[in-house]
Amino acid sequence: MSKEITSREQDYSQWYNDLVIKGSLADYSAVRGCMVIKPYGFALWENMRDALDKMFKDTGHVNAYFPLFIPKSFLSKEAAHVEGFAKECAVVTHYRLMNDPNGGGIVVDPEAKLEEELIVRPTSETIIWNTYKDWIQSYRDLPILVNQWANVVRWEMRTRLFLRTAEFLWQEGHTAHATPEEAIAETRQMLEVYATFAEEFMALPVIRGVKTESERFAGAVDTYCIEALMQDGKALQAGTSHFLGQNFAKAFDVKFLSKENQLEYVWATSWGVSTRLIGALVMAHSDDDGLVLPPKIAPLQVVIVPIYKGDEQKAQIGAKADEIMKGLKALGIRVKYDDNDNARPGWKFAEHELKGVPVRLALGARDLANNLVEVARRDTKAKESISLDGVVEHIEKLLVDIQQSMYNKAAAYREEHITKVDSWEEFEKVLDEKGGFVSAHWDGTAETEDAIKEKTKATIRCIPLNNTQEDGKCILTGKPSKERVLFARAY
Amino acid sequence: MSKEITSREQDYSQWYNDLVIKGSLADYSAVRGCMVIKPYGFALWENMRDALDKMFKDTGHVNAYFPLFIPKSFLSKEAAHVEGFAKECAVVTHYRLMNDPNGGGIVVDPEAKLEEELIVRPTSETIIWNTYKDWIQSYRDLPILVNQWANVVRWEMRTRLFLRTAEFLWQEGHTAHATPEEAIAETRQMLEVYATFAEEFMALPVIRGVKTESERFAGAVDTYCIEALMQDGKALQAGTSHFLGQNFAKAFDVKFLSKENQLEYVWATSWGVSTRLIGALVMAHSDDDGLVLPPKIAPLQVVIVPIYKGDEQKAQIGAKADEIMKGLKALGIRVKYDDNDNARPGWKFAEHELKGVPVRLALGARDLANNLVEVARRDTKAKESISLDGVVEHIEKLLVDIQQSMYNKAAAYREEHITKVDSWEEFEKVLDEKGGFVSAHWDGTAETEDAIKEKTKATIRCIPLNNTQEDGKCILTGKPSKERVLFARAY
Repeated sequence: MSKEITSREQDYSQWYNDLVIKGSLADYSAVRGCMVIKPYGFALWENMRDALDKMFKDTGHVNAYFPLFIPKSFLSKEAAHVEGFAKECAVVTHYRLMNDPNGGGIVVDPEAKLEEELIVRPTSETIIWNTYKDWIQSYRDLPILVNQWANVVRWEMRTRLFLRTAEFLWQEGHTAHATPEEAIAETRQMLEVYATFAEEFMALPVIRGVKTESERFAGAVDTYCIEALMQDGKALQAGTSHFLGQNFAKAFDVKFLSKENQLEYVWATSWGVSTRLIGALVMAHSDDDGLVLPPKIAPLQVVIVPIYKGDEQKAQIGAKADEIMKGLKALGIRVKYDDNDNARPGWKFAEHELKGVPVRLALGARDLANNLVEVARRDTKAKESISLDGVVEHIEKLLVDIQQSMYNKAAAYREEHITKVDSWEEFEKVLDEKGGFVSAHWDGTAETEDAIKEKTKATIRCIPLNNTQEDGKCILTGKPSKERVLFARAY
Repeated sequence: MSKEITSREQDYSQWYNDLVIKGSLADYSAVRGCMVIKPYGFALWENMRDALDKMFKDTGHVNAYFPLFIPKSFLSKEAAHVEGFAKECAVVTHYRLMNDPNGGGIVVDPEAKLEEELIVRPTSETIIWNTYKDWIQSYRDLPILVNQWANVVRWEMRTRLFLRTAEFLWQEGHTAHATPEEAIAETRQMLEVYATFAEEFMALPVIRGVKTESERFAGAVDTYCIEALMQDGKALQAGTSHFLGQNFAKAFDVKFLSKENQLEYVWATSWGVSTRLIGALVMAHSDDDGLVLPPKIAPLQVVIVPIYKGDEQKAQIGAKADEIMKGLKALGIRVKYDDNDNARPGWKFAEHELKGVPVRLALGARDLANNLVEVARRDTKAKESISLDGVVEHIEKLLVDIQQSMYNKAAAYREEHITKVDSWEEFEKVLDEKGGFVSAHWDGTAETEDAIKEKTKATIRCIPLNNTQEDGKCILTGKPSKERVLFARAY
């Protein structure tokens, strides 16, 4: 019997949890808000990480590693930054446990109190800029193009697997530049790297944009973002790239001697994506039978299920499967032969559907006699019998096709769900009945943004890059506006 | 002017620090005991990690990720384990900061106190076995062969870059098995993986052995180890693999239904190596001019330094260098053309020697006219002029040769520094005057082991696997002994 999945219509949120847990991506842990990323989920993350890491290195970045802990005083040095993170910090106050002399078991040793509390990094701008102070003297030391793969902790009160967890894995790029132009170009370059990754590897179309002031990263001058759309019509911020100006250089006193022999503050960027992307991937593509994973990052791209009676058939089918596997592996395709005797083919079909394996081959004795194999694609569930002669080439093309059609499907859904509205009534109606992005005029003030959020739970996801300039009136206040922005309810 | 390095003879410990810091591997951070791993050091770690990760996967393991935090009560569940780690734990007690109402700046919010303190993982047996409880019901769920790459924290009072830091990076394998035989075979297999990695990639000969009871991992039934020898005659534990018996299964009540339909506790192993290996690498091979890195894991394997006057020569040499680079890169060789105009060739030579780049090519105008290039190898400092015609193939072979001769050199040193002794006087003399491993009889008691450590600072590094059985008398007590063990002073 296959594992039961709640349908999207029945309970979207439970459907998501079922997919993550029963699809073997992750699980809750004994620590509030922290998750266990299971081997299948971690293999997916490894594929995503490796693709991103290559893109970072191809654009001249190198990896490094900075401390997990941040002295409390560091956080306070950048005013907006501490404001943004102080409310959700895990704080280390002691460095030893002891046996309670009063018989209370293992307790914190009160004598082992730290002089200054340490914060478990929620992000690393402060510790990194404190380090860059030692690395940067002259323009010759610039740019610094460093990335870090790390775990970070933000003590969220309401958590959801992958989407919002107290601890998550991410990468954070931290670059240092001699001019604002160069830093802004870097910020935009990395946004484009993220967008390309989302579209080409995750089959996830994204809108490139810039955040409004109230949605900016704590300490940034500008926050660029990519925004994706989920199947329930809610938006999800899938990556951010920040132009930090000289804020952190000033907070940590990082100056350099310019070519013109002037002492100047350094210009900064930071940019990150996290395991949250896995949540986006699940919600963008999957269906009521389970995960649907894009071939480029799927841990397993092809599974072969044998259908046989008796040892002779098993051996014949096994030999043919070996041959196919060999051909696929030679092309770098990740394939598994599922010859587990403890499960029936039907159970295996359901299990591999649940796990989102892009292509399934079913190979039976009669197929073999007819030189045929049944090929099923996970995304459309289309099945066909094809000749065994060209099966390897067929699958190679099929994987490319699946990747592209998953993207096309998500892009079509996204296009259908960007709605221009020009009145408040329409705005509320679209949000409630259709969802998706609502393209509307806004008067440019944080007050109006807050009021709209208060009334509708919709936020400004971004001001799209290359936005058309167009005169209009704010949907809430009627005040003049020069361009539309994208609103949505969001994860 | 090149950076100054303290010589080994002058101050071995300072020599080590100079190499790590001036060689751009790592640096101290603002957080006591925590280091910053710089890009060059991290590239080295990436090469080590990737090679190990492939070996783990080739032996059937998969990666996963478990929470950074461990509830205090979990640590206490395994008696020996808590005893071993309680004294050096970073403890999270609060989850929020606030503005001090009395004007004291940013302070810990006393109302945001955790109900149960969380320990930053010093190792993950407890949180993982608490998770395995949910993953294991029957023998069909076994074995579990999981590895995790992670950061861990042990609040050491005396720290040294890479060798002993409060936070370090490592991998920890945690496997679960149905029988003790299978778990012991896994423990030994992973020890062999570590030994192979050390010898083949790090060019570091190691002794495979088992620890005495007092040197065992906290919670293990048996700890296997690989022990390496540094140039100052001190030993360094380079990796451990633990047979944990049913200790953690009992502590977390993890049982499985066996093939015979019996409910039994699961058998466990854990095994790990860490960034400490980088410290071992530095100390095993380097010299007074800087790092000497084995080609297989060196971030950069070949550097080409042009020597020219004027733009015409520069262009000619550049064109030839491009051609060489192309040939090397086609073979997967990591090469850099150092055409930085701000430094003279002599400075560059010193810098690349300091950083341990295995092969340096110097290409001048006269060389080019004679179709020659100067090839210098870092390990022996031998230089030769060779024809440009076969340079790519020459370098490919040279890198193999350097890897092998670095191993041979370290192995010869190690062989010279294993000394059999049969009296206490000799024992002390060898430790003080020659160093290295001392092979001696011991009466098998922890008391004697402690007494020897007290008197000499030497510990039993291991009982070598496949040790010869031989009657003898304990060097300290004269009591009978059946085999020699290896003593050494150690990092």
